[in-house]
Amino acid sequence: MAGPDLHPDIQRLAFLLGSWMGEGKGDYPTIAPFAYGEELRFWHVGKPFLAYTQRTWSLDDGRPLHSESGYWRMAGPSRVELVVAHPTGIVEVEEGDLDNATLNMATTAVVRTATAKLIERLERNLRVKGDVLTYDLRMAAVGQPLLHHLSGELQRGAG
Amino acid sequence: MAGPDLHPDIQRLAFLLGSWMGEGKGDYPTIAPFAYGEELRFWHVGKPFLAYTQRTWSLDDGRPLHSESGYWRMAGPSRVELVVAHPTGIVEVEEGDLDNATLNMATTAVVRTATAKLIERLERNLRVKGDVLTYDLRMAAVGQPLLHHLSGELQRGAG
Repeated sequence: MAGPDLHPDIQRLAFLLGSWMGEGKGDYPTIAPFAYGEELRFWHVGKPFLAYTQRTWSLDDGRPLHSESGYWRMAGPSRVELVVAHPTGIVEVEEGDLDNATLNMATTAVVRTATAKLIERLERNLRVKGDVLTYDLRMAAVGQPLLHHLSGELQRGAG
Repeated sequence: MAGPDLHPDIQRLAFLLGSWMGEGKGDYPTIAPFAYGEELRFWHVGKPFLAYTQRTWSLDDGRPLHSESGYWRMAGPSRVELVVAHPTGIVEVEEGDLDNATLNMATTAVVRTATAKLIERLERNLRVKGDVLTYDLRMAAVGQPLLHHLSGELQRGAG
């Protein structure tokens, strides 16, 4: 089943398309270090954005850990915008720059529900080489400064 | 394949679970009235939130129109929180009240990317009776006051 053509405005994000599976590691001053399985999916419907979902699970017993979903847009030849919702009650805007297949994104706005814990800032560095995606995420949250939180490596799947 | 049990914190949102298909109508002072097909999906992974996606399409040619994705949480016995990302570059927090199977939600915070059009406020009224979901959405955006924008009726599917 052939889908629509990729919208010309997001041709430069084509390197993200597909389903990615892999593993990551996390740490933060307030929690014990942990490892996780991860799936990322990026797809399009012919409009000028990529849809995006992420989910992680425990390597011990497969129970779901984090998830998030949102949309990626281009705001110029190398300027990228991300809007993302987190089930912890946070929604966030990130903006950043695209250099070949490397994205450097940082929070420009974050708001939350009455019961959500505060996340102040996320910074994502995401690189794709062929069918391998690696990333690092730094976070300022719950009174901590901006610190390394997550790193992962994923392989692009057949899907 | 049996999934995990619904988390007790969101038992009162169980009436939303499933895939819903139907049609809606839209109007706003700045655009011509329009009709659309629509799919809503609500699911859970055993954690205290429902994941949510929505997409609409033209009844003329099936081309995709709006979409959004996010998460629903309970903040108390009848208090509901929604975080949602829109591919137009908007992310939004809505909070509201649940009365049996009727939800009344309104924007409490909205932020956007540098290139997104301003939406100031959304109000959603959503009702489920058996396998029929109806909703109305009011919107204040692009300099207009809070006005009726969308109404839809959907049927719960077998999925």
